Amino acid sequence: MNTLNDAPAPARGPAEHDIRDQIVVAATEHFSRYGYTRTTVSDLAKAIGFSKAYIYKFFESKQAIGEMICTNCLRGIETEIRAAVDSADGPPEKLRRLFKTAVTASLRLFSDERKLYEIAASAATEKWQATLDYEVRIKGLLQDILLAGRQSGDFERKTPLDETATAIYLVLRPYLNPLLLQHNFDHTDEAPAHLSNLVLRSLSP
Amino acid sequence: MNTLNDAPAPARGPAEHDIRDQIVVAATEHFSRYGYTRTTVSDLAKAIGFSKAYIYKFFESKQAIGEMICTNCLRGIETEIRAAVDSADGPPEKLRRLFKTAVTASLRLFSDERKLYEIAASAATEKWQATLDYEVRIKGLLQDILLAGRQSGDFERKTPLDETATAIYLVLRPYLNPLLLQHNFDHTDEAPAHLSNLVLRSLSP
Repeated sequence: MNTLNDAPAPARGPAEHDIRDQIVVAATEHFSRYGYTRTTVSDLAKAIGFSKAYIYKFFESKQAIGEMICTNCLRGIETEIRAAVDSADGPPEKLRRLFKTAVTASLRLFSDERKLYEIAASAATEKWQATLDYEVRIKGLLQDILLAGRQSGDFERKTPLDETATAIYLVLRPYLNPLLLQHNFDHTDEAPAHLSNLVLRSLSP
Repeated sequence: MNTLNDAPAPARGPAEHDIRDQIVVAATEHFSRYGYTRTTVSDLAKAIGFSKAYIYKFFESKQAIGEMICTNCLRGIETEIRAAVDSADGPPEKLRRLFKTAVTASLRLFSDERKLYEIAASAATEKWQATLDYEVRIKGLLQDILLAGRQSGDFERKTPLDETATAIYLVLRPYLNPLLLQHNFDHTDEAPAHLSNLVLRSLSP
């Protein structure tokens, strides 16, 4: 920071991470009770017993805190999806689990953590980096399953892999994206099975 | 209406239809300029030069007028889709056109008639009969294409027709429903081709 001398910067080790984590945990608790959109950093500071200035030392804006919470939520969903995919036998079943768990885990976020969902919706509307990264990782997971299925002979190999992955991602997206998912509640029971069956038919060699 | 005598009810012939149409045309014009959600029947009456009581003689509520406008808009989209499907050769190409035209026609409603789109969004949120009927008709059109493709040998016949139609409708729905479409703008260029190709791969015999 100070380019005029070579004195070491103030320690930015585990202590700082701990405080950041502490703020995120308290903010998650606060937002999940009072909502994200209508809470200001001042409200938050008052509620969690830090000064506003102190919070701003660690996060440049409310959105920066929201992004961290969003990252944590999406990591949670992703972990659940990966676990379900890993525990399934063979690429076709892995693909089914990807669809099923993406929907159930995203829905759980919606219903259990109604207020945190506000953060996810802001994130999706404003295209926060956390949601873009999540999309990329889910697409990557999908591509891995497709590759494995091509190698095992379960899936066709004529269509370019990119094209297949993009098309399947477009089918899955309405159930991953919180803005879309909220308009899909009438279909979340039947959709995962119907859609993964259709996708598997499209992949048959 | 009057059960106490057999006198004929007041004429409900073309004259009444003309007035209803006149109100709908004027209301469409008014809503497309000032928006649907924030306009009251009083505002509308004042603007189109009828008394509020007179409007209520023909429509029981603002929503009833909105439903009529919505029906007209959706009929317009449907006519465009049917024309595109009819002019295509063979079931696979008809299916491609269905996807492509559903997206372009729905998007046009969104961009040209931004204020009327408010009506479509209310309709979708509150599940007005007009949108439910539209869904049924588009599903019917899809089913007709599938049947023709099964007869011509272009499409597989193992999967129950109902199941195939439902699954494909779920793939198409995010681009038909105005609430979903508004969150899909980043994908409307590439989605119709990607999705119809995937669907056609899923239908190959």
